[in-house]
Amino acid sequence: MLLEAIYHRPKLNWSYAYDRSTMHLRLRSKRGDVDAAYAMIGDKYAWDRTMETLPMHLFTSDALFDYWEVEVQPPYRRLRYGFRLEKDDQCVWMTERRFETAMPENSLEFFDFPFMNPADIFEAPAWVKEAVFYQIFPERYANGDPSISPANAEPWGGEPTPVNFFGGDLQGIINHLDHLVNLGINAIYFCPLFQATTNHKYNTGNYLKVDPHFGTNAKLKELVDACHERGIRVILDAVFNHSGREFFPFADILENGALSPYADWFHVRDWPARIEDGIPTYDTFAFEPLMPKLNTEHPEVKSYLLEVARYWVQDIGIDGWRLDVANEVDHQFWREFRQTVKSINPDAYLLGEIWHDSIMWLQGDQFDAVMNYPFTNSVLDFAVHGKLDGLGFADEIGKLLIAYPQSVTEVSFNLLDSHDTPRLLTECKGDVRKMKLALLLLFTYPGVPCIYYGDEIGLEGGYDPGCRKCMEWDKDKQNKDLLSFFTTIIHLRKQHPALRSANLNMLHARADDACLVIERHDPHTGEYFVLILNADDQSRSLDLTLSVDGTWHDVFNNDSFKTDQKNQLQIEAYGFRLLQLQNTKQ
Amino acid sequence: MLLEAIYHRPKLNWSYAYDRSTMHLRLRSKRGDVDAAYAMIGDKYAWDRTMETLPMHLFTSDALFDYWEVEVQPPYRRLRYGFRLEKDDQCVWMTERRFETAMPENSLEFFDFPFMNPADIFEAPAWVKEAVFYQIFPERYANGDPSISPANAEPWGGEPTPVNFFGGDLQGIINHLDHLVNLGINAIYFCPLFQATTNHKYNTGNYLKVDPHFGTNAKLKELVDACHERGIRVILDAVFNHSGREFFPFADILENGALSPYADWFHVRDWPARIEDGIPTYDTFAFEPLMPKLNTEHPEVKSYLLEVARYWVQDIGIDGWRLDVANEVDHQFWREFRQTVKSINPDAYLLGEIWHDSIMWLQGDQFDAVMNYPFTNSVLDFAVHGKLDGLGFADEIGKLLIAYPQSVTEVSFNLLDSHDTPRLLTECKGDVRKMKLALLLLFTYPGVPCIYYGDEIGLEGGYDPGCRKCMEWDKDKQNKDLLSFFTTIIHLRKQHPALRSANLNMLHARADDACLVIERHDPHTGEYFVLILNADDQSRSLDLTLSVDGTWHDVFNNDSFKTDQKNQLQIEAYGFRLLQLQNTKQ
Repeated sequence: MLLEAIYHRPKLNWSYAYDRSTMHLRLRSKRGDVDAAYAMIGDKYAWDRTMETLPMHLFTSDALFDYWEVEVQPPYRRLRYGFRLEKDDQCVWMTERRFETAMPENSLEFFDFPFMNPADIFEAPAWVKEAVFYQIFPERYANGDPSISPANAEPWGGEPTPVNFFGGDLQGIINHLDHLVNLGINAIYFCPLFQATTNHKYNTGNYLKVDPHFGTNAKLKELVDACHERGIRVILDAVFNHSGREFFPFADILENGALSPYADWFHVRDWPARIEDGIPTYDTFAFEPLMPKLNTEHPEVKSYLLEVARYWVQDIGIDGWRLDVANEVDHQFWREFRQTVKSINPDAYLLGEIWHDSIMWLQGDQFDAVMNYPFTNSVLDFAVHGKLDGLGFADEIGKLLIAYPQSVTEVSFNLLDSHDTPRLLTECKGDVRKMKLALLLLFTYPGVPCIYYGDEIGLEGGYDPGCRKCMEWDKDKQNKDLLSFFTTIIHLRKQHPALRSANLNMLHARADDACLVIERHDPHTGEYFVLILNADDQSRSLDLTLSVDGTWHDVFNNDSFKTDQKNQLQIEAYGFRLLQLQNTKQ
Repeated sequence: MLLEAIYHRPKLNWSYAYDRSTMHLRLRSKRGDVDAAYAMIGDKYAWDRTMETLPMHLFTSDALFDYWEVEVQPPYRRLRYGFRLEKDDQCVWMTERRFETAMPENSLEFFDFPFMNPADIFEAPAWVKEAVFYQIFPERYANGDPSISPANAEPWGGEPTPVNFFGGDLQGIINHLDHLVNLGINAIYFCPLFQATTNHKYNTGNYLKVDPHFGTNAKLKELVDACHERGIRVILDAVFNHSGREFFPFADILENGALSPYADWFHVRDWPARIEDGIPTYDTFAFEPLMPKLNTEHPEVKSYLLEVARYWVQDIGIDGWRLDVANEVDHQFWREFRQTVKSINPDAYLLGEIWHDSIMWLQGDQFDAVMNYPFTNSVLDFAVHGKLDGLGFADEIGKLLIAYPQSVTEVSFNLLDSHDTPRLLTECKGDVRKMKLALLLLFTYPGVPCIYYGDEIGLEGGYDPGCRKCMEWDKDKQNKDLLSFFTTIIHLRKQHPALRSANLNMLHARADDACLVIERHDPHTGEYFVLILNADDQSRSLDLTLSVDGTWHDVFNNDSFKTDQKNQLQIEAYGFRLLQLQNTKQ
């Protein structure tokens, strides 16, 4: 048994309270190396009379490792535990202190999960699990009030540049809410709406005022109310890592230098705040002079920004925040931010922009979710770029599933593109077949899917500024097939818990094989779905082995299909099938 | 190269800000498997022009793994990084996403340390690094005021039982401060002093009042002031996981049941709060009916206990808290506790009682240290019980050093016994030679050593109640040799930064070999020490290979010794030498 591969540590994604009464324990071993894994569990204050041994199930695998899991409900909310691993006639015990070849005598050396305190349990809003998000870049969605458009606004639909304007505004969004309702959207994430000089508004000038080219605070309230009437929740972009240069404290610094009463609101390394050899003498986002980094540890800055957080949630009624460059702000700020927002609206969704492993922000004290770009990369590399085969994709998904507690996976914010990436259809080089494969993976994955505005009607565009084109409202120029596909898949996801469930089973995922078969099951409703994808440019026949026998219905083409027949399916190049179990024969 | 053994994750003990400008990166590989490890580092917003490759040094090893470390000072306080490992002609690159066999092209897939925000940096009080702690169990230290002794107090020096009293009090401690000064103590940790019915006082009845049998709040202030005048800091035991049954809110619950205004201050599972089949119907410490678990998430409970924390620090002037059963209280409570205490006294030391891995409490937002019982176990198993050979001990120390950031190790609270364990001399079955070996390991280890009262004069005793005997003040009954040894070694530690430094180098640590040679070096003063221990019952001759040549002085027996001679040392059974480099010849 390869001891070097065996890993466990208490807390994080390895032992955690899934809810107020349930714990999950997880263990890693070398892939294929261990026949069986067991958890020895008990109450630390009554070990001898409570200790029992539970088998763990193989939860998932990645390229190098198998991951074992077991669910436990400790009656007194505390757990002492260790592991036993078996391979052939070899048996190894693992405690916190070491590996042993016999049952360890001193139970003090076992692992300890001291207490399942509710305050420390990761709990995200329940509505998020049912949500389908839609991301809007406001300057480019719809111009509903030309009277407030920037003077230099260009005709709608022109070529976006880093600096031009087209006059998108809040009224335009209100005018088009029916589009979102028809699509099935029930949550919107807005890129920044607050006053700022740029078209993207990530350089906030005034945190308490909607940009005048977008509308007024009252207009936003009208928009939020209109959304709520339609069952659509709204989250805004909180750009708290940095402000714009026009934000009054930084403007004061530019005017008064080190003598400014706001001198400590930012991180000025050398006075006066200026640009030297292209690099600002004050900390910024990246090296961007327009975006001075806020000193979020300063009590005044903190209370200012927390008041901003409060205002939009309490007075305007938004349902949460997407937190820009979230990982460059201190953890302590986010903890207080969470407390502020949740004390007003416990159901607010707090979504951090972090592109990397984010477990340290997802401990229950900071965010509810992060933008799941690792998922994006895996889906694109499998379904679009052909860089991952079925096994490679399954391995990366396995790695992702084990990287977080199940409770985190269930509200993970999954996306395939955004204002910070090329558009999905452009990644697909215009091949709608590939786009549908990627979308099927998105819409049948645990967590919450987000659509970048315009993807649903076939908008294309590369990296910024290309991906920030004007929305196409001319129905004749919209891709109707794609729109219909989006509408169908959104409807399916909302209708079927199995497609949202955390139970994801890779039935077919092989090396050098671009076919993938994923089983989705919801134990509460008994629903079973099977998603079959062929990410190859050749059609092929696939031997299907399902875990349940019965009649399966293809929800896209109305075929029916019995699994007691020879389970051979023909799938065309970049084709797919989504089968639902109609009735089991048993 | 064994990829399954290679491990890194951002944050925790693997990549952290050591101070406001310095980061440490660490990497794990199979022991002896990798020839060289490198960190590729740069600024994520200027990767192409900032990327550089730094060699990592072998920081430590344990039974299975080598651990590599490198120190970096990122000019803009943020770091993108990856690793390269070499073995023979094999080369492997490690990013967050995967292992690769060539330099990864997409630097977005590297690891990310987003920003070194001061608020998130672990910073413990500087005084702790110079401290020598002394733990006092107040009921058993000295009776200075018989007028306040419990009516049933027994004559001083009798056999302790779980329930008897001897009349120890604060005046007794004040009367004996000279003993501590002479010994060289500069910090005291007091077991609970607040009003409670038991002799150990871990069932607090009144958090705001010194137990009347110990004295008054004014008397404690007098004691704290007297300590401060002598350069001795004082920390008290905060028992916030649970109270006693006499604590007024629980007394109210016992009287008024579910109708009590304090019904939610505790966790009553079934009303009325009672004992059923030996198990309380309310959560407790362990299953102890006397110790109902406090609901530290309840706002009123929280503000009550935080006021307690404030009062003793601000009004009485204590220098910190030892936090009883700290890991069973919610993290959020401790975060607010830290903020409360540090806002009054930023130099307060917050020491959690956690016997297991504690990294989740040592992220800078909760504790400064935990009671280092894993160190205790390793020292006892090597120096006292003969369960670990030199290599086994070195491996466990390696595991401990890598388990925490260096900044945490530097203020770690190291102890060999306490009121919760048998006394050291009793573990040694009375063999003072073994005891000295263990003490030498304690007093030359990074962090802060703590002596349990009476160990210095040879007090013995097994588990509670044995370890809670009355202090022996009759000089004729004190072990003068031991007292002199303690005084010497405390003096040495306080005098020589090398003995406190984080640089610990195992020069001789072998399998089936009870000899151990540890080099201690302080790069700032240039001091070198070598500690040589023989934990075997046979004398032996030892070949010594030191990393610096020169004249060495044995600080215990005044021998001198030149390392250009044949480096053979004779060490008696359970013997030791502590050599200091006098001058180097170069």
